Amino acid sequence: MSNVTVHLDLDEVHPLAYHALKANGCNDENASAVADTIASAERDLCHAHGLFRLPGYIASLQSGKVNGCARPRVERLSPGVIRVDGDSGYAPLALKTVRDPLARCASENGIAAAAIVKAHHFAALWIEIESLTELGLCAMAFTAYTPSVAPAGGTRPFYGTNPMAFGWPRPGRPPMVWDQATATQARGEVMIAAREGRELPPGVGINREGNPTTDPKAVLEGCLLPFGGYKGASIALMIELLVGPLIGEQCSFEAATTDNRDGGPPRGGELIIAIDPKRFGSDQDPYEHADRLFTALLGQEGTRLPGDRRVKNRQISAREGIAIPQSLYDRIQGH
Amino acid sequence: MSNVTVHLDLDEVHPLAYHALKANGCNDENASAVADTIASAERDLCHAHGLFRLPGYIASLQSGKVNGCARPRVERLSPGVIRVDGDSGYAPLALKTVRDPLARCASENGIAAAAIVKAHHFAALWIEIESLTELGLCAMAFTAYTPSVAPAGGTRPFYGTNPMAFGWPRPGRPPMVWDQATATQARGEVMIAAREGRELPPGVGINREGNPTTDPKAVLEGCLLPFGGYKGASIALMIELLVGPLIGEQCSFEAATTDNRDGGPPRGGELIIAIDPKRFGSDQDPYEHADRLFTALLGQEGTRLPGDRRVKNRQISAREGIAIPQSLYDRIQGH
Repeated sequence: MSNVTVHLDLDEVHPLAYHALKANGCNDENASAVADTIASAERDLCHAHGLFRLPGYIASLQSGKVNGCARPRVERLSPGVIRVDGDSGYAPLALKTVRDPLARCASENGIAAAAIVKAHHFAALWIEIESLTELGLCAMAFTAYTPSVAPAGGTRPFYGTNPMAFGWPRPGRPPMVWDQATATQARGEVMIAAREGRELPPGVGINREGNPTTDPKAVLEGCLLPFGGYKGASIALMIELLVGPLIGEQCSFEAATTDNRDGGPPRGGELIIAIDPKRFGSDQDPYEHADRLFTALLGQEGTRLPGDRRVKNRQISAREGIAIPQSLYDRIQGH
Repeated sequence: MSNVTVHLDLDEVHPLAYHALKANGCNDENASAVADTIASAERDLCHAHGLFRLPGYIASLQSGKVNGCARPRVERLSPGVIRVDGDSGYAPLALKTVRDPLARCASENGIAAAAIVKAHHFAALWIEIESLTELGLCAMAFTAYTPSVAPAGGTRPFYGTNPMAFGWPRPGRPPMVWDQATATQARGEVMIAAREGRELPPGVGINREGNPTTDPKAVLEGCLLPFGGYKGASIALMIELLVGPLIGEQCSFEAATTDNRDGGPPRGGELIIAIDPKRFGSDQDPYEHADRLFTALLGQEGTRLPGDRRVKNRQISAREGIAIPQSLYDRIQGH
């Protein structure tokens, strides 16, 4: 242990998060679900969605914005649509609750959707996607947040970082899962760069006056840009529609007016689409067909499968554990 | 009429295309469907998907690759999945055939998918998306092509330009529809730039040696890049999976080995997902909610809704008609 970071074995992450959440009003089920999500992020060395978020989770329990004893309610609205009312809790328990009903619905119908509403999402989307690929399903997920990304042609925050994730199952192997913000970078990454005093690459964001800057603090006060210009902005707009008007939850611009800015995640929606590749009538095995695609792709030098870094990180974190800033560790322990 | 371009009134486009297709082996139904698609593209001043493609359509009828008398067969594979066998014809008739069954299926289930296989797609996707938004449905569509885009980290063509489109219905107004290649530009745009001797913006593509170039001919021999770097490439890979292994059709890399390179479109698949916003349990009117989102977005100076240029172009083309190169006109008339 240095005076700057604290070393943790992987199996220390879950109890650290769990106890801090319990001490701040989560019941066992909710604390476990959120701690699972945090531990998965740390296992994958995705610190921006790991313990780094715990002070925010705790702040929203303390302010009363988030219900630490939420009991998500699942309702089937139509043969292909499941709605989950998150009961103002954190998203992980709602997502755990909907996984099996959604998977059954997708297998029966070929395609199905889960609309998660009245939940507070603060994590990566690959977690829910992976849990569906484990059942042989292909899946997409979308969520919004609060305004931090400029629309195409604009200079002020309007879209959330609005991640979209996609996964394809690979029986016997880790699934192919990507999970990407429609912002050039996730806000969490910019926050970590600010904390560590690192400059951002050019093109990530603009300052409060609408001018390009590589200073992460100036971008946090100003705004992020969508990846790939207007095309990324189109995807951000699609996500707002899918998790706002479609399912009857808040768009990012609406969350900005209702959120209490306690540092935790706003109330919001998530849409998950699950698809059963065995129900689409291919005369080939769809998983083997996909593996031929992956093999052909990897035949080109310099390429890799999206998400394979996370898979490699699991070996590293299992062997070496993780390091978190002493200040963060103290803050979590102090709660 | 100058000696370089030919002026056409909008109502001359359909018969011009229809008669050329009929003269080359299309029956009435197939010629009408393809001519509808071409006329829609010209109406929207999207020349890259209009008459410019007709010589390619004709080439594939002449080579026997495409069946001009195709009779698409629709089959419901599961409550939420419809499969359309295009009978080796052009996609427009298959798409016309599946529209109403898909819409019914989406309204019953909340969400439904159409898998179009054994079809040859050569057009924009906004046409099928718009036809679903007219029924109050939200929709997404995906298709692949033949390799012309480098994967992330690679330098040789692997992905097709792989467009994805999304539409949201606006009762009483034109829908919000975007339709974008995951390539930096559509290949048709690069072909037009080559024909007109225009340079490309930097970053669009690389030459045969893998080096950046702004020469459209060098890019057509080399390869396009995905928009937004690795994030655009992730979307391109998702599209390959959705229209290849998922539905049992060819990925772009597979089409490259089976296509006869006659200048027309390869055989391929398309996936359409249709979603009924009235089946997701919102306690608000989803269309009005979306209009509040659009109004808030347009409140920021410099912004516009994706696809609104096409809507404006319709007024221009209705008033002024269109101009096509004399050489293209002569080529079409000569068939």
